[in-house]
Amino acid sequence: MADAPKAVVLPPGSTVGILGGGQLGRMLAIAAARLGLRTHVYEPGAAPAGDVAAQLTTASYDDLDALGAFARSVDVVTYEFENVPARALDAIEGVVPVRPGRRALAVSQDRLDEKRFVSGLGIAVADHAAVGSREELDAAIARIGPGILKTRRLGYDGKGQARVRGPEDADAAFAAMQGAPAIYEAWVAFEREVSVIAARGLDGAVVAYDPGENVHRDGILRTTTVTGAAGRGIRADAALIAGRLLNALDYVGVIGVELFVAGGRLLVNEFAPRVHNSGHWTIEACVVDQFQQHVRAVAGWPLGDGARHSDAVMENLIGDEADRWREIAAGGGGLHLYGKAETRPGRKMGHVTRLSPKT
Amino acid sequence: MADAPKAVVLPPGSTVGILGGGQLGRMLAIAAARLGLRTHVYEPGAAPAGDVAAQLTTASYDDLDALGAFARSVDVVTYEFENVPARALDAIEGVVPVRPGRRALAVSQDRLDEKRFVSGLGIAVADHAAVGSREELDAAIARIGPGILKTRRLGYDGKGQARVRGPEDADAAFAAMQGAPAIYEAWVAFEREVSVIAARGLDGAVVAYDPGENVHRDGILRTTTVTGAAGRGIRADAALIAGRLLNALDYVGVIGVELFVAGGRLLVNEFAPRVHNSGHWTIEACVVDQFQQHVRAVAGWPLGDGARHSDAVMENLIGDEADRWREIAAGGGGLHLYGKAETRPGRKMGHVTRLSPKT
Repeated sequence: MADAPKAVVLPPGSTVGILGGGQLGRMLAIAAARLGLRTHVYEPGAAPAGDVAAQLTTASYDDLDALGAFARSVDVVTYEFENVPARALDAIEGVVPVRPGRRALAVSQDRLDEKRFVSGLGIAVADHAAVGSREELDAAIARIGPGILKTRRLGYDGKGQARVRGPEDADAAFAAMQGAPAIYEAWVAFEREVSVIAARGLDGAVVAYDPGENVHRDGILRTTTVTGAAGRGIRADAALIAGRLLNALDYVGVIGVELFVAGGRLLVNEFAPRVHNSGHWTIEACVVDQFQQHVRAVAGWPLGDGARHSDAVMENLIGDEADRWREIAAGGGGLHLYGKAETRPGRKMGHVTRLSPKT
Repeated sequence: MADAPKAVVLPPGSTVGILGGGQLGRMLAIAAARLGLRTHVYEPGAAPAGDVAAQLTTASYDDLDALGAFARSVDVVTYEFENVPARALDAIEGVVPVRPGRRALAVSQDRLDEKRFVSGLGIAVADHAAVGSREELDAAIARIGPGILKTRRLGYDGKGQARVRGPEDADAAFAAMQGAPAIYEAWVAFEREVSVIAARGLDGAVVAYDPGENVHRDGILRTTTVTGAAGRGIRADAALIAGRLLNALDYVGVIGVELFVAGGRLLVNEFAPRVHNSGHWTIEACVVDQFQQHVRAVAGWPLGDGARHSDAVMENLIGDEADRWREIAAGGGGLHLYGKAETRPGRKMGHVTRLSPKT
C-alpha cells in the first residue's frame, strides 16, 4: 500500500474530515473549530458530532460514492474509532491523506497482530497465544494458566471477552467467541492500570501527557486519575513506550496506550489509534487537550505543550448516571454531556472532570 | 413590557437560540454543545458560529417571519451583541424568553441611560452631560473640562467617539457625531482599566470571576491580564459592583463590566449585557468559562464555580496578526481562531491565552 500523499500544512479555513460521529468525533470537531478549521463528519447512524460540525454526511461505510464525495470535500481525514473498514479507507486514501495512517489501524484492529507488533519493539506485553481451535485453547490454558480469551478483531468495553480461571472455563469461553479467531492472554495480576496519551506530529515531534490511573468496572472505564502519585516511577517509561510505538508506526495524531503496572514493570495491554476516553481529563487540566493535539497533528500544525497545570479526576457518566446532570452541574467540576438522544445501560453519556492543585 | 414567561430549567437536548453569529456566538455554541444543548444561530451576514451550531438561519433582523420561526424552534434566546433591534425582540419575546432580559439591553444600548442607571445605584461613574446641540457641548466642556464625546447609541471599538482636549476641539467632535444624540464624558486620568465578568442565574445566584487588567490600543482591547496583583485591592469591590448591577437588572446571564481605577476608586465606564472579550481568559484558566456560565444561566442551570486555577494573559489577534497563527501555535498558549473568511484591519480574528501559576 503506497503512502497517502503528504499534504502540506492545512491553514485555518481548511476542512478536517472525521469518520464517526460519536462523542469523540464531537469533541474533535469542537477542537478543530477552536483553531479555525472546519469539519465534515461522516457517520452511518445518529451523529451527536453533527451538531458541531460544518457538514454531516449520513451514509454507510459501504457507500463508496458517499465516501468519495466526502473525501473530495475535505483536506484530510481522521477517525474516532479503530474499526474503520479497509474498503472505506481505500475509497478515501486515493483522494486525501488518512491520519493516523493505515499501518496503525491495521495493527490495532487485530489483537494478536498488536501484541506481536508491540512485543517486536522490545516492549513487554502479557504472555499470549493465538487460538483458532478448541485444541489451541486447551494448549494455551495449559501453558499460560489463568487468562482471558478475546476475539482478535472488534469488541470494546469488555465485549467479545471471556475470563478463564482454569480448564473448567474453556468450554464456555470458546463458545463465547462464536467461531471467531481469538487470542488467549495471560491474566495479569496488576497493581494498577494506567494509560498514556501521546501525539506525534507530521514533523515527527512527539508529546506525551502525564499518565493517568484507570479504574474499570464491568469492562468499562469508570475513572481516570492524574496526580503526581499516579505518575510516580512510570511517567518516563510510559512516555518512552508511547514514543517508540508512535515512531515505529510513522504515526500522525494522538494515540492512547493502556498499560498494566505489574511487579513495578509496565506491560502494554492495548493501544487505540485515536483520542481516548482516558485522555478526557486533558480538556480541563491542560491548555492544549488531546482533541486539539490530534487536530494539530493531522492538520500538520506544530504540536502543543502537553503539560498539565492541575491534578484531575475524570469520571465517566454511564447510562442513567447522566440523568444526575443537574446535581453534577451544581457540584463543581467540568461537566460534559454528549448529546446522545437515547440513554442505554452501559452507554457513555457524558463525563465530569474535577481539578485540584497539581501534585 | 410584560416579562417573558419564566421558562423551567432546560434539560440537555434543549435548544438555545443565539442572535448573532460572530466569535462570541461561536464560543457560546461550543459551550452549549459541551453541556449537551443544541444551538440555533440567527445572523444576517456571514456566520462563523454557524459551523458549530446545530442550525443556522441567515436572515435580517427586520424579517419578522424568520424571527418568529427561529423563536418557535428554540427554548430560550440569548444574543452576542447588545444592539439587537427592539422590534426583533418583540417578535421573539412572545414565543420564548430572551435572556438577559429587555431592561439590560435597553439600558446598555444608550450610553446616557447607562450612566444614569449605574449612577442611580450609588456606583461611581465619570462626570457626564447629555449633548443634543452645539450649545450643550460648549456648556459641557466648560463645566467638565477635557473629555470624550460619544454617540449615545451604537459604536464599538472606539467608533463614534471624539476626544476633546479643550474648546478648540468642539467643532470637529460635534461634526463627528453626524447629528446623533451624544454624551460628553469627563476624561478620566485612570491608573488602570479593569473589567469584571460576572453572572447571575435564574435562581438569583451571582458568581464573579477575578477582575482582569485591560490594555486598549486605538480603542480596541489588546490584552487582558489576570493575576493576583491585577485584582489586589479591587477584587471585592468589582464583584460587589457587578452584583449590584445584576440584581438591579433582574439579570440572567453573563455581564461584562468595564471599570477605571482612578485615585484608588472604581468608576464604571460601561457594561455589556453579554459575554465579553475581556473574559476570554476564563476558557483556559477556569473549569467553567464565561461562555458555559452564560449558557448555564440562560438555560436555568446552576451556575458553575468562577474560581481560576491559574494566572492568565489573553492577547487579541487583530487583523493580519492572525496570519502568524503557525508561529503562535508553536509558541505555547491556547490559540483560538474565529473562522472569519475575511481579514480586515481592526477586525478581531482570534486570540491567544497564556497561563502561568496562580499568584
